[in-house]
Amino acid sequence: MMLLYGKVVAENIQQEIQQKVQNGFDKKLCTIGFEQAEWLQYVTSLQKTCQKHGICCENIVAEDGILPQEFFRLVEDTCKRQDVQGVMVQQPLPKQYKDAVNFVDVNKDVDCLNPLSVAKLYLGESGRLPATPKAVLQLLDYYKIDVAGKNVVVVGRGRAVGKPLALMLLARNATVTICHTKTQNIAQICKNADIIVSACGVAGLITQDFVTEKSIVVDVGLSFVDGKTCGDVDKSVYEVACAVSPVPGGVGPITRMALLQNLLK
Amino acid sequence: MMLLYGKVVAENIQQEIQQKVQNGFDKKLCTIGFEQAEWLQYVTSLQKTCQKHGICCENIVAEDGILPQEFFRLVEDTCKRQDVQGVMVQQPLPKQYKDAVNFVDVNKDVDCLNPLSVAKLYLGESGRLPATPKAVLQLLDYYKIDVAGKNVVVVGRGRAVGKPLALMLLARNATVTICHTKTQNIAQICKNADIIVSACGVAGLITQDFVTEKSIVVDVGLSFVDGKTCGDVDKSVYEVACAVSPVPGGVGPITRMALLQNLLK
Repeated sequence: MMLLYGKVVAENIQQEIQQKVQNGFDKKLCTIGFEQAEWLQYVTSLQKTCQKHGICCENIVAEDGILPQEFFRLVEDTCKRQDVQGVMVQQPLPKQYKDAVNFVDVNKDVDCLNPLSVAKLYLGESGRLPATPKAVLQLLDYYKIDVAGKNVVVVGRGRAVGKPLALMLLARNATVTICHTKTQNIAQICKNADIIVSACGVAGLITQDFVTEKSIVVDVGLSFVDGKTCGDVDKSVYEVACAVSPVPGGVGPITRMALLQNLLK
Repeated sequence: MMLLYGKVVAENIQQEIQQKVQNGFDKKLCTIGFEQAEWLQYVTSLQKTCQKHGICCENIVAEDGILPQEFFRLVEDTCKRQDVQGVMVQQPLPKQYKDAVNFVDVNKDVDCLNPLSVAKLYLGESGRLPATPKAVLQLLDYYKIDVAGKNVVVVGRGRAVGKPLALMLLARNATVTICHTKTQNIAQICKNADIIVSACGVAGLITQDFVTEKSIVVDVGLSFVDGKTCGDVDKSVYEVACAVSPVPGGVGPITRMALLQNLLK
């Protein structure tokens, strides 16, 4: 069994980023959201990554109780700033502010959440790609795993990973099956696949009976069990499958680099 | 073997449309395109359908050699007209005019080609749905074929049918596999499915070895062989499968009604 680690892939992208920044990058990434613990934690960790690469990351915190229209204006105005290259809006947003993504300028939409970015992705037109599914493809590319003509099962149909990844794999000529909570005989469907990508956030979902000795498994799940970071792929899979990209240590480290790539694009 | 005809489904929708029009509908559908034979043929046939239902359909023909910017303005201005409820732009358009779909007001976009309509479809948000895949779901609904939890294979990944249909089936909790020209062992994949929808335009593509006696097959292919309208499904399939929606006579008649539904929405 081969382990598909992401660190070496991330390092390659990191070098590319450092070169670009060295050649001069005086613009910044702006994050816009509320004073909400999970979001602030994410922003802090993102700021650290940016700092490490000599990129300025400014966090704009909206006042509690701001009117939706004012929040949208804040997003719009931030996108107009000449010193800002990329804008990220908190995800998920409280319901009444949800439409803020419509106000992110498509040219500064590093997260690919604006409907125009989404439509480009759907139509397979060139443009930015969302960071996590992009990281999955970068991992597969690094390990020279060609998806064209392969049967690829994507487990999960979320907006952040499953759905965009399915379209991106399709654009690369994979035969794609999308499984989810309502899927029956999911183990059998996965067993018939050449490649399984799981993005559910359900620890231990993918067990030994989902795989054969030919299966390539990419774990993109993320959950916390007893304070430990867990993927979707059960330990028993590692004994059977041909190759596994683990959590932690697989796609995760690449994701942050893919986001910076989007910023510098 | 049961034949899933579309005429009766179309008639039901037709009644619904007639009721709406009777209650007063003084707006019109506008088509915008060039003097190009295939498009004009389509428009003429559409105008007949509209006329039959008491709906006015105005065809706007752009001058040859019109500047793209002028063409876009024409689309934009037509959408602003108070007497216009729906706008359809010629498909496919010559390359330099392709972006015209971006100028179709999303509220008048009966064809769902504007990127905002596309993004809504992708995100599973409520809104208009493109006519042909919508007609497929209406056919399945009429015959009480529930797709939730079923394995559905969509053969074809085109912008008009395959891709939107896959997303619409996914939103209805089907487990969806998308096959295409680069798919290997396509017969076996189809054989494992509960429902097969083929939208390729390749006569006779789906043969007996793609199906079992449990297969439900919906033919959405359209091609012309020796002047005859042909679907993707070979005659031999009719001897084996559980149910087949034929071409002609299946989804076709429903599609036009689905478009009028979009206009009246």
